[in-house]
Amino acid sequence: MDRTNDSSLSPRIRDLIARQPDGHAMLREFYSDEEVYQVDCQRIWRMGWIFAGHSCEIPKAGDYFTLEVDSDSIILTRDGNGQTRALYNVCRHRGSLICDHSEGHVKKLVCPYHRWTYDLDGRLLHAPGMQEELEKSRLSLRPVHVREAEGLIFVSLASEPPDFEAAHDVLATLAKPQGLAKAKVAKMVDYLVRANWKLVWENNRECYHCNANHPQYIKANFDHYNADDTTPRVREQISAAVSRSEAKWAASGLAVSHKQTGMTTFPDAERNIWYSANRTALVDGFSSESMDGAQVAPLMGDYPDSDVGTLRMRTLPNFWNHSSCDHAVSTRLLPQGPHLTAVRVWWLVEQGAVEGRDYDLAKLMPFWQLTSEQDWEICERQQRGVNSHAYVPGPYSIYKEYNVDAFVRWYLTQLQAEKP
Amino acid sequence: MDRTNDSSLSPRIRDLIARQPDGHAMLREFYSDEEVYQVDCQRIWRMGWIFAGHSCEIPKAGDYFTLEVDSDSIILTRDGNGQTRALYNVCRHRGSLICDHSEGHVKKLVCPYHRWTYDLDGRLLHAPGMQEELEKSRLSLRPVHVREAEGLIFVSLASEPPDFEAAHDVLATLAKPQGLAKAKVAKMVDYLVRANWKLVWENNRECYHCNANHPQYIKANFDHYNADDTTPRVREQISAAVSRSEAKWAASGLAVSHKQTGMTTFPDAERNIWYSANRTALVDGFSSESMDGAQVAPLMGDYPDSDVGTLRMRTLPNFWNHSSCDHAVSTRLLPQGPHLTAVRVWWLVEQGAVEGRDYDLAKLMPFWQLTSEQDWEICERQQRGVNSHAYVPGPYSIYKEYNVDAFVRWYLTQLQAEKP
Amino acid sequence: MDRTNDSSLSPRIRDLIARQPDGHAMLREFYSDEEVYQVDCQRIWRMGWIFAGHSCEIPKAGDYFTLEVDSDSIILTRDGNGQTRALYNVCRHRGSLICDHSEGHVKKLVCPYHRWTYDLDGRLLHAPGMQEELEKSRLSLRPVHVREAEGLIFVSLASEPPDFEAAHDVLATLAKPQGLAKAKVAKMVDYLVRANWKLVWENNRECYHCNANHPQYIKANFDHYNADDTTPRVREQISAAVSRSEAKWAASGLAVSHKQTGMTTFPDAERNIWYSANRTALVDGFSSESMDGAQVAPLMGDYPDSDVGTLRMRTLPNFWNHSSCDHAVSTRLLPQGPHLTAVRVWWLVEQGAVEGRDYDLAKLMPFWQLTSEQDWEICERQQRGVNSHAYVPGPYSIYKEYNVDAFVRWYLTQLQAEKP
Repeated sequence: MDRTNDSSLSPRIRDLIARQPDGHAMLREFYSDEEVYQVDCQRIWRMGWIFAGHSCEIPKAGDYFTLEVDSDSIILTRDGNGQTRALYNVCRHRGSLICDHSEGHVKKLVCPYHRWTYDLDGRLLHAPGMQEELEKSRLSLRPVHVREAEGLIFVSLASEPPDFEAAHDVLATLAKPQGLAKAKVAKMVDYLVRANWKLVWENNRECYHCNANHPQYIKANFDHYNADDTTPRVREQISAAVSRSEAKWAASGLAVSHKQTGMTTFPDAERNIWYSANRTALVDGFSSESMDGAQVAPLMGDYPDSDVGTLRMRTLPNFWNHSSCDHAVSTRLLPQGPHLTAVRVWWLVEQGAVEGRDYDLAKLMPFWQLTSEQDWEICERQQRGVNSHAYVPGPYSIYKEYNVDAFVRWYLTQLQAEKP
Repeated sequence: MDRTNDSSLSPRIRDLIARQPDGHAMLREFYSDEEVYQVDCQRIWRMGWIFAGHSCEIPKAGDYFTLEVDSDSIILTRDGNGQTRALYNVCRHRGSLICDHSEGHVKKLVCPYHRWTYDLDGRLLHAPGMQEELEKSRLSLRPVHVREAEGLIFVSLASEPPDFEAAHDVLATLAKPQGLAKAKVAKMVDYLVRANWKLVWENNRECYHCNANHPQYIKANFDHYNADDTTPRVREQISAAVSRSEAKWAASGLAVSHKQTGMTTFPDAERNIWYSANRTALVDGFSSESMDGAQVAPLMGDYPDSDVGTLRMRTLPNFWNHSSCDHAVSTRLLPQGPHLTAVRVWWLVEQGAVEGRDYDLAKLMPFWQLTSEQDWEICERQQRGVNSHAYVPGPYSIYKEYNVDAFVRWYLTQLQAEKP
Repeated sequence: MDRTNDSSLSPRIRDLIARQPDGHAMLREFYSDEEVYQVDCQRIWRMGWIFAGHSCEIPKAGDYFTLEVDSDSIILTRDGNGQTRALYNVCRHRGSLICDHSEGHVKKLVCPYHRWTYDLDGRLLHAPGMQEELEKSRLSLRPVHVREAEGLIFVSLASEPPDFEAAHDVLATLAKPQGLAKAKVAKMVDYLVRANWKLVWENNRECYHCNANHPQYIKANFDHYNADDTTPRVREQISAAVSRSEAKWAASGLAVSHKQTGMTTFPDAERNIWYSANRTALVDGFSSESMDGAQVAPLMGDYPDSDVGTLRMRTLPNFWNHSSCDHAVSTRLLPQGPHLTAVRVWWLVEQGAVEGRDYDLAKLMPFWQLTSEQDWEICERQQRGVNSHAYVPGPYSIYKEYNVDAFVRWYLTQLQAEKP
């Protein structure tokens, strides 16, 4: 592929892109260089759709949370008409942050510096002390594009964001029965992972490392078996699980859409498909991604019983979610520098569930808390190795790292995409 | 104005200066960029006069304190003739710091590395172990220009500093009755504010933010009332305060020099007036800038009684002082990077005053400690917002931010001034 | 000397080299600049031989320790044939660190990410899950050149390292009787010194600072006396010590090779001699470099009794060692940035010695622990001064800083050496 198309990239970046070997891990600079990081911010993080959080985090007008994308702070709030809004958290007067806390509730958005007051939709209502000729209508908080899909909120910092409809259709169709829009956050944990965001993403896109690192995860799932090591017995197990589910779910529309071992293929770099969702069978005996497979919270959404496998969603560059019958776990990445990624993990349950009565965090959390923290440790170790001058990108396994390879292709395509 | 004069500025900086909109907050880069910070160090901090500290901090020969301007450490000391000296804190041999502590007392300035010994005026006295032909007279500690005005010490790192006489006249005339040269430091507090020094300065140059942020300050002062919101009642109050003072002070020469509400205008960018001082009336019932307005220490200087309003002084780029009849509060800024400012606040009282007997820190400090810390929080929040790509400089209030606007003009003029 | 030869250095670096005054401390940028630091990494740290550690730290096959040179991590291990190996600690698959701990024991080198498994000599043995056509033989861990001299391990990151034989001969000949290859590590202390590695090195190359800073050290040694201040009495003392030793050691081959006061001259910049060793008499009454001069551990190596003076070795850019009859102290520098140096100090004793019975850390350590920590403080203070714009390189003492001057010449020569 001709990788040196975009003349607005610096010669150094174009040279890096040209030197990236096919089917191999990325060159050192892609994971550690300041200029590459700035290009990532411009061409990935400020161009596409970013997962922000959940509608259920801001149920009422004036509820808000903030989102920090590199050095850009964004307010996610609900306006008086019940509409979700995304606004830059930067006063139009002298640039102060407006919301200083990471979440809260306000009636209006009032800048704490000089009390410029904005409506929840961003319109400047009052600017006391300013000259009469101030054109308030030109001083609204700068809006950020925002879209929702069944309780998942996405934003785009681009002036003209890419299409969201196809993503919405895929995500909403599969997510609907999960009831995320009627969920509540049972727990949220924030991590600072000392690794480039792409290392964190790549780690999530293969289960080649699962046997060695995720003793809990592999008990529940078929992802770590691939074409090269799926035994007849495993093949039988997954077939049985799939057939059983299909028979049972025929009426309720919960089709298993990923019927093999291994991870579903994603992304589609050639067609720029940056979103996907699928329903997958769990190992026999697992009703939920919990330590022992038992249900750990009340059924969510429209599920008739616990036998629904797992719903999985992921969107580039920063979101994945595994949802069982009884709880959903969302993970969000945000870049904070070439070697630093802020990660948030949410555990969601049905909105009426009461802690202590209906669920217990000590049972709800460990499966994904352990799995996540195992991954952060892997990523930090990889970053330290990749920083070395001795690092040479190695070949990807065609059996197990097809999704990492697809990500690299997607990423390089994004860097070179024509900008509007 | 043609802002692209100075050919020794990089094209990037000249472009920034050219793009700065009139009457608006400064562009993002002025507050966050490393190259701008380096230009600030060269053209502001190493060119003009910087407030260093107070004569009363080094009363005896050999007393010293150090001043850290970016990465330059400077010793302020008093020599054997009682003269205040400023010397770079860098040994002429291999560059070691000579004074490792931020204050102290020495007989000679002895480098701890190899015992090169300098007199308090900087002359190299001994360099044991060096060859006989060493030209000691060429190896004095490098001097820094130093001037005093009624107990306030200023230094200039420039080889040919700008004129100081006019500044001296203004400051000394107004400061004389305050008796700062016969004061003592009751307390000193150091802060590291995570904001560009210009944000900290600008914050001090308007009281537009006072109503929302400084409940203590606004009780004592008229600064937060401006042409747009001074009610007839407030106008009457200040007139009464001014007239009363004028009548009373006629004999003692304590003229109120700022007779309106709002802050006195400063700086004068066009004539490069970087210093100013004025005496201002306090709100009725306030004898001192204290929490309840009551006097909190013995009268200072030549004051006949407590009814003297406040003396206020400020010099660019790094000093302001509010002095009441009984105490004086100095604030000094020092740059430590594009996003970091070291701030020191001093509380001074009459030199014979004894803590516990004549004053109590719990009464002396809160008014300005609270006000200062409120301001640092504002500045840090503004820095975080200004870092955003979404930040767009907004318009200044012509009623309330005239001094911030004047500062921006002064600053841009300094950047482009012809260098000697 | 024409210092502007090497066209692959940037004009800025070549200009710095050209401006460096002879016989003076180095220019500010050499100690504080990021680009200079990168050049140092390329032309010093990734070109010559670096001291890594001691053979006795990895006595058995599979024992390992890691070495961090700037951002390159290296594994030092012993293979199944008893041979010392140095391998980059970077998996050939996706670049993860393989050994996450700074020391340990393994059977194979197994990457924790995907279990790629390497033999102790670096050969890739297993890469489970990879395609069959994987060329394992091309995916060995990248080797680092490694050489040993009587228990001291050196590595070179260069593709074609400079000659080691001459260094080996000098070090091995003098070190042999010390028995470092049959030693054990009694204690190891790690420091992070906030100073450029060259400041730390230079500090070690003169004893001009000893009188003022090292009260313990100067009791035991003659280094701090030089041509300018060696009194007849001191001259007599060292002559007596040398003669006594020579008479006594005639049979055992422990020749005193440095017979004057002052430090032995090193390096030889003109002939690029980056290694040296010598045996030196101690002050009468000192059997060991301990606080009171008394022996603090059993005799090491082949020493017949305690009267052996001290063996001293040093190799550029990062190693020095002082060995007494009963213990040896090694110091290793590793660069971590323009203003940061990681320093490790080891105390070694005879391998059969038992703590509590044969030696006591409270007696073994203080002499060099105090001396070392005094030096780190000096270096950090010098770095702070050298950072100043007011710093001007001063003249070296021809009596006392001849080795620092020689180091500067060696360093500048290395920067400009033709690269293979």
